[in-house]
Amino acid sequence: MNIFNQRIEKLKQLLEHEECDGLIVDDTINLYYLTGLYLSAGKLLISPKETTLLVDSRYYELCKSDSPFPVVLSTKTSTINDLLSGSGIKQLAFNSDNTTYGEFKKLEKEAELLNLKPISNPILKLRAIKDSQEIETLKEAAALGSAGYDYLVELLKEGISETELAIELEIFWKRRGSKAIAFDPIIAFGSNSSMPHYRVGQRRLNKGESVLIDIGVNLDHYHSDMTRVVFFGEPDPKITNIYRIVLEAQEKALALCRPGTLIADLDAAARSHIEEQGYGENFTHSLGHGVGLEIHELPIIRSQNSNAESRLEEGMVITIEPGIYLPGIGGVRIEDTVAITKGACENLTNRSKQLITI
Amino acid sequence: MNIFNQRIEKLKQLLEHEECDGLIVDDTINLYYLTGLYLSAGKLLISPKETTLLVDSRYYELCKSDSPFPVVLSTKTSTINDLLSGSGIKQLAFNSDNTTYGEFKKLEKEAELLNLKPISNPILKLRAIKDSQEIETLKEAAALGSAGYDYLVELLKEGISETELAIELEIFWKRRGSKAIAFDPIIAFGSNSSMPHYRVGQRRLNKGESVLIDIGVNLDHYHSDMTRVVFFGEPDPKITNIYRIVLEAQEKALALCRPGTLIADLDAAARSHIEEQGYGENFTHSLGHGVGLEIHELPIIRSQNSNAESRLEEGMVITIEPGIYLPGIGGVRIEDTVAITKGACENLTNRSKQLITI
Repeated sequence: MNIFNQRIEKLKQLLEHEECDGLIVDDTINLYYLTGLYLSAGKLLISPKETTLLVDSRYYELCKSDSPFPVVLSTKTSTINDLLSGSGIKQLAFNSDNTTYGEFKKLEKEAELLNLKPISNPILKLRAIKDSQEIETLKEAAALGSAGYDYLVELLKEGISETELAIELEIFWKRRGSKAIAFDPIIAFGSNSSMPHYRVGQRRLNKGESVLIDIGVNLDHYHSDMTRVVFFGEPDPKITNIYRIVLEAQEKALALCRPGTLIADLDAAARSHIEEQGYGENFTHSLGHGVGLEIHELPIIRSQNSNAESRLEEGMVITIEPGIYLPGIGGVRIEDTVAITKGACENLTNRSKQLITI
Repeated sequence: MNIFNQRIEKLKQLLEHEECDGLIVDDTINLYYLTGLYLSAGKLLISPKETTLLVDSRYYELCKSDSPFPVVLSTKTSTINDLLSGSGIKQLAFNSDNTTYGEFKKLEKEAELLNLKPISNPILKLRAIKDSQEIETLKEAAALGSAGYDYLVELLKEGISETELAIELEIFWKRRGSKAIAFDPIIAFGSNSSMPHYRVGQRRLNKGESVLIDIGVNLDHYHSDMTRVVFFGEPDPKITNIYRIVLEAQEKALALCRPGTLIADLDAAARSHIEEQGYGENFTHSLGHGVGLEIHELPIIRSQNSNAESRLEEGMVITIEPGIYLPGIGGVRIEDTVAITKGACENLTNRSKQLITI
């Protein structure tokens, strides 16, 4: 059975729990996950009998040659109605996190006598566990991401701006096969680094400033994510102090990255260390998140979260990124992306976290 | 009154036609249009009394300093409920093209006793008419787009691949202030140009091939869009023949680009010329589309379309892009972006359409 059929079979098991025997998938990322085809529009209908891909004339030729499932040309007359009426589906699920209200009303007409059931993206759960092929791609993305970090460190010099660095980084990645960035880079000099959601600006680098670099690249649809802080000239002791604490917190969490660890415990390992050192209020975000076809996927690594009582599993790929932010002074976040393996984890980011002064 | 208040007032008039006195706006592009702020998440509530922006903690500080409207921090407890209950709204509209089914169900709870009315994106109609500031930005985007075309023509040489050209183009634009491309470039050598939805591939340029270049850049959130075909070495007479017909068709349509022209007539001007020359079957797409914050906006320039009986208005910015495609041989499309002005139009693309042989 090929990888796409395997995914469909797993999805059918999830649907059974929801008492559904059919599903409409209508968003680009999940269509890619289930078919290997990157389509800006299209619908995959999963039914007990078979799985069918509906696309318009723009994609029909491509899909006929490359789709793992039968392809039907969708026209203005009711193709989906025809498919549904012969499908044997009793209860048809749709993704309430993606299907718009307008599309739902159309589907309601097309599905006629079928029961429709909105369910929150069921494929996200499946995507939390990566197969070996996905982990290979994530490793390649992480390697390209880390190479971009090395390149940025080489470029650091007095007077260069955050924006200039971001542009050079994107060009570096583009020349090496990336079609897109994973997210707008965060490159924050000095006090700018105290804002966790800062991006880049016109600020120019001065001696004695820290440089926070939180970057990720998209390679073959999979993402990388890493953060480092380096020091340009003599570092401020306030920043080197929190650097040490954040690094210790991250090491405590990384030591727990293996199958079976409760997600609440993983978060607590880092968070309680930061709290003990008196900076609990200054760690304002989650410890981490899954990474894959999207930059933020399941699981969310945080105690106060719906998945806090679930456990790490082999095949999860997650970030571990504790941080401490001192308003007006600066911040430190250290982030690696790790793959959960049998009994342990593999760090995909693979770059030194020693305090570096340039 | 500032530009954002003007837009809200126009929107309220549209809402009146729908018998609504309130609207929730919840997508990035329309939030940008109405507030000037680019937010990945947030809600704008328009009510008879006032307009309020709801954002989470990530955007609160930024919005408090830059929003043209009062800002409320949205928390997990029902801020929107509080706002709605004091709003005086009787019938609250939402955008059924964007609001997901899941968000609709949440809103239904939050809005309690209010009547909710799904309406198809009402802001798109407003956005079809650009103000002078938007036209300025679209001109700058078009100038950068055309400069990218000049650059590509300089790069053409035997053996260069379509993909290599696309990468260099993106880098050229990025170094000149663009944050993103408007769409994946179409750079098609020889017979590849017969597929209107081709992008780029590994094909390398040979003498005697035509090169179809359909490219656009995003500058400050506004888009450019242009297409040219140039000839590398001695052109195939089959292609130069359709080049002449497409150019004539485009000129016929451009001559009608002024306020008052019926959209059906505009499409027919180009289409009937291509039909008369025997290539009607080979012109398989619309004549053009609006361009603005999205690459495809209203109006759609096609006779068989819901807006065919509406007329061009001053402030519209549209593409005119007839094409002829000969399967297995090659295709020609010539596209300019024009702004409809008082009594005429201004061509923003501003590049020669003479048959160029390199």
